[in-house]
Amino acid sequence: MAQTVLKVEGMSCNHCKMAVEKALRNISGVESVQVDLAQKEVVVSGSADRGQLAKAVEEAGYTVVG
Amino acid sequence: MAQTVLKVEGMSCNHCKMAVEKALRNISGVESVQVDLAQKEVVVSGSADRGQLAKAVEEAGYTVVG
Repeated sequence: MAQTVLKVEGMSCNHCKMAVEKALRNISGVESVQVDLAQKEVVVSGSADRGQLAKAVEEAGYTVVG
Repeated sequence: MAQTVLKVEGMSCNHCKMAVEKALRNISGVESVQVDLAQKEVVVSGSADRGQLAKAVEEAGYTVVG
């Protein structure tokens, strides 16, 4: 399955992790979301568009890098 | 009105702030709660017992110092 990896700044705790996961899980095409706080990395499995994923992360209050 | 000031470690973002505020607001005798993330300080107004406040903060997943 396709994976999209986003580098995300501003996730500092498990609340942030949950907020980002929640923001991404409801997007069409997203099969699963894994947030690695230490690596500042979000791995999304599924067919969702990268731009749409990044937009959802930004709208949740975090910054997508690169 | 009496004030209790707690030094709290582990509050890293606004989600943490809200979690601590929520944990303290429901305690009997608490009139208001103010969290200063930068100062790692929680100021509670009212007659609530310091030990009870500290316990609620710890149960929310944070560490009361001193």
